[in-house]
Amino acid sequence: MFEAAELGQEIGKDEYEERVEKLRVELINAQYDLREADFPVLILLDGDDRQAVTDGLHEMHDWMDGRYLETQALGPPTEDERERPVVWRYWSRLPRKGCIAVFLDGWALEGIRRRVLGEIDDAEYGRWIEHVLRFEQMLVDDGMLIVKLWFHLPKKELKKRLKKAGKKKKQAWKVAEGAERVYELYDEAIPIAERLVRDTSTGESRWTVIESTDWRYASVTAAETIRAALTHRLAQGAQQAAAAASPAPADASERPDEKTVLDTVDLSSTLERDDYREQLADLQADVARLTGKALEKGVASVLAFEGWDAAGKGGVIRRLVAPIDPRSVRLVPVAAPTEEELAHHYLWRFWQHVPRNGRIAIFDRTWYGRVLVERVEGFAREDEWRRAYKEIRDFEESLAENGSLVLKFWLHIDPEEQLRRFQAREDTPYKQYKITEEDYRNRDRWGAYVEAVHEMVARTHTDQAPWHLVPANDKRFARVAVLNHFCAGLKRLL
Amino acid sequence: MFEAAELGQEIGKDEYEERVEKLRVELINAQYDLREADFPVLILLDGDDRQAVTDGLHEMHDWMDGRYLETQALGPPTEDERERPVVWRYWSRLPRKGCIAVFLDGWALEGIRRRVLGEIDDAEYGRWIEHVLRFEQMLVDDGMLIVKLWFHLPKKELKKRLKKAGKKKKQAWKVAEGAERVYELYDEAIPIAERLVRDTSTGESRWTVIESTDWRYASVTAAETIRAALTHRLAQGAQQAAAAASPAPADASERPDEKTVLDTVDLSSTLERDDYREQLADLQADVARLTGKALEKGVASVLAFEGWDAAGKGGVIRRLVAPIDPRSVRLVPVAAPTEEELAHHYLWRFWQHVPRNGRIAIFDRTWYGRVLVERVEGFAREDEWRRAYKEIRDFEESLAENGSLVLKFWLHIDPEEQLRRFQAREDTPYKQYKITEEDYRNRDRWGAYVEAVHEMVARTHTDQAPWHLVPANDKRFARVAVLNHFCAGLKRLL
Repeated sequence: MFEAAELGQEIGKDEYEERVEKLRVELINAQYDLREADFPVLILLDGDDRQAVTDGLHEMHDWMDGRYLETQALGPPTEDERERPVVWRYWSRLPRKGCIAVFLDGWALEGIRRRVLGEIDDAEYGRWIEHVLRFEQMLVDDGMLIVKLWFHLPKKELKKRLKKAGKKKKQAWKVAEGAERVYELYDEAIPIAERLVRDTSTGESRWTVIESTDWRYASVTAAETIRAALTHRLAQGAQQAAAAASPAPADASERPDEKTVLDTVDLSSTLERDDYREQLADLQADVARLTGKALEKGVASVLAFEGWDAAGKGGVIRRLVAPIDPRSVRLVPVAAPTEEELAHHYLWRFWQHVPRNGRIAIFDRTWYGRVLVERVEGFAREDEWRRAYKEIRDFEESLAENGSLVLKFWLHIDPEEQLRRFQAREDTPYKQYKITEEDYRNRDRWGAYVEAVHEMVARTHTDQAPWHLVPANDKRFARVAVLNHFCAGLKRLL
Repeated sequence: MFEAAELGQEIGKDEYEERVEKLRVELINAQYDLREADFPVLILLDGDDRQAVTDGLHEMHDWMDGRYLETQALGPPTEDERERPVVWRYWSRLPRKGCIAVFLDGWALEGIRRRVLGEIDDAEYGRWIEHVLRFEQMLVDDGMLIVKLWFHLPKKELKKRLKKAGKKKKQAWKVAEGAERVYELYDEAIPIAERLVRDTSTGESRWTVIESTDWRYASVTAAETIRAALTHRLAQGAQQAAAAASPAPADASERPDEKTVLDTVDLSSTLERDDYREQLADLQADVARLTGKALEKGVASVLAFEGWDAAGKGGVIRRLVAPIDPRSVRLVPVAAPTEEELAHHYLWRFWQHVPRNGRIAIFDRTWYGRVLVERVEGFAREDEWRRAYKEIRDFEESLAENGSLVLKFWLHIDPEEQLRRFQAREDTPYKQYKITEEDYRNRDRWGAYVEAVHEMVARTHTDQAPWHLVPANDKRFARVAVLNHFCAGLKRLL
């Protein structure tokens, strides 16, 4: 999931200065208001980028009133701490109401470190995560605001930094102690860290992963996340918040230039007609063979399709379904929920269609509606869509644990391509029914949807149930790409 | 923890008829109101008493409007169900808003059955429990009211019943199918069931364990629990409830004759002065020796003392501390929280005093204040003290996992003995400071405290951190009993 934060985000010097000036005033004001408020604030600063963690702390002290900001740099446990239950050292450092405590490398990093060093095995690590969840839940129930920041540096950037520091002695201080060690362990440690960050992100206490390639971007984003969480919570009022605490993200509209995972999709990808025909034929033959084998072996598939209106989901799905034995595949088109469906939990209607072993269910629109259209259009309350990420992860985990293949596709096009397709539909009599006023209206919310797609991918992309962001400006390319992913997925499991 | 429900509860025929008549009207009315409400209701009927489960269901159908009561008797999974994720069968049966579904032997019994039959090991069973917790949390978050009833029959009663059925053919129908099997597996299965029932009791979705020795008591209590949960929730209003859902227990004052765990304490226990002197001397020598060994081995002890005012906690503690090396013991008297303590989570101040390995902490009054005085006097909100049971279990589990001995004592006296002691204090000049107006005022709430103590013991008595209910009308007996438990506990761990 950290890939979702490998976008090369950066901020120019002028913009940086302008935003910092504004932020400092806001942070001090928020801190001042907090003094009178009835809740404590805990900021967890962690990350694979050790330098960014240290820098982040320094900036926080620079920009806020240090008198009401307690820092707890948690190194390895002392003898005193080792002789007590693991969480004891954290308890004794918790902030009181009206105060902020910053934990440098708290329980998250401690768990990750133990797992990476092999002091605990996978099952014990899972138990650690459960403990973290319960512990944080208890604090949140009591009214605490928890802001969790993870600074992530892509591997190639870390390599660059190490190289540069090696050459120029004067740059060496820019590389925190231990950075070489992080680089050595990178491939092993990152998936371990990702698991913890994903699994301990709940509606009420979640991680914000911040790319730290550009220090200006990292520091402004960290400060803005803290500022937004504080002001959001202060506005809610402490009492009410204890029930439905949910720190807000920095508002999307304030950062229109922010990059998202969708920027990583290369929309110029195309495929020539002849290549397409040949590849499609081969892939469809593979699909026929592999789905036959899956039926035999009892491996079910759940394929989830999301994407912009007119991105070509229908065309992809038709070509995917064609070679499959119709008795083992079921296409589930998802429209607005019926009255009966509204009377149940939003996941209920999707559970109805979970396939038997060996069978395939293809969802045209999915349970992700909760964090896409329902979020953007305000059909779901903020606390509802926020906790949906975890609910959805649990749902997909149930499927994967049953041995099923779970794949999720976002078909991506740009606004111009969408407009062209809308107009083409209007000109084609038998496609006119596909296009309504609402489709045009949705275009106005493009930015809000982009933000929602980004958060969706960042929070629900797992090894067991990965997202594939498919470039679909070229329909042929998209079709072949999806069939390729499906075949690869089946091969992995068969 | 099921012992807390082995109290020989019963209801006479007349009282039964009177209460059932009233209950039926109330249940039907609640059901009627529910039709218009915005939440679904799920009742889980489970238990080691298979007959009571069946009877309970029949009565529910008898007493409520069957048109809006769906029963889901969940036998072993069908082929269709086995070929999908485990929870699929439950999802498809969930009730819609305004309706009640009764699950006979749902996910709880399925997990217990698998563990008892050895299909899953202890770690997998722990994972099952975590899944249940998440699943129920998701449903509760969505507004569902979950009422969970566990019918428990003490082993000797089950034996009697089987014997009787063997003799009288006509009685045989009173023993459900499988009862012999339950008897065979009893000693192994009950602790497994207890673990699930304890660990899946949260503030928002908790089990009520009902003794089913007397069928009248069992059926009235079950129906009253359902009635109370329904009316409580209906009164809250669906919206608000989604945030702070907490079904109320049947109100204590409605059942003044209800037995509690405190009724199992034999207050007539006494000890002659000479025996006392001898035993105390021996035990104190043991304490000295064992605590020395604990220091060497690094086994910490956490001893929690609760009890009625004037029950003699101070005297017990003095005699316990006397033989221990003062460098390794710490006495923590717990008074009303300071301003600093109030600014933190209520467990925070107790964490400060968690002993190092090998050391001993003795708490005179404890974290149980949350579910005793704070509950009874209204210092904590209902949702706060309700979730405290789980928070306290987690806290004590952390201690026990660290290898510490955790023992909890309730010193029990009766109201008459308390009054005698109050008066004696007033007559003894150097004890007068111990007695205030408030002590007399607390006596008025004796019944409410009894109810709170009962629920506390039922929900927090675990193998790792057991409660000992100590008869303390005779001070000598109490002192020897506590020292005995402490020595036995240390011996177990050393």
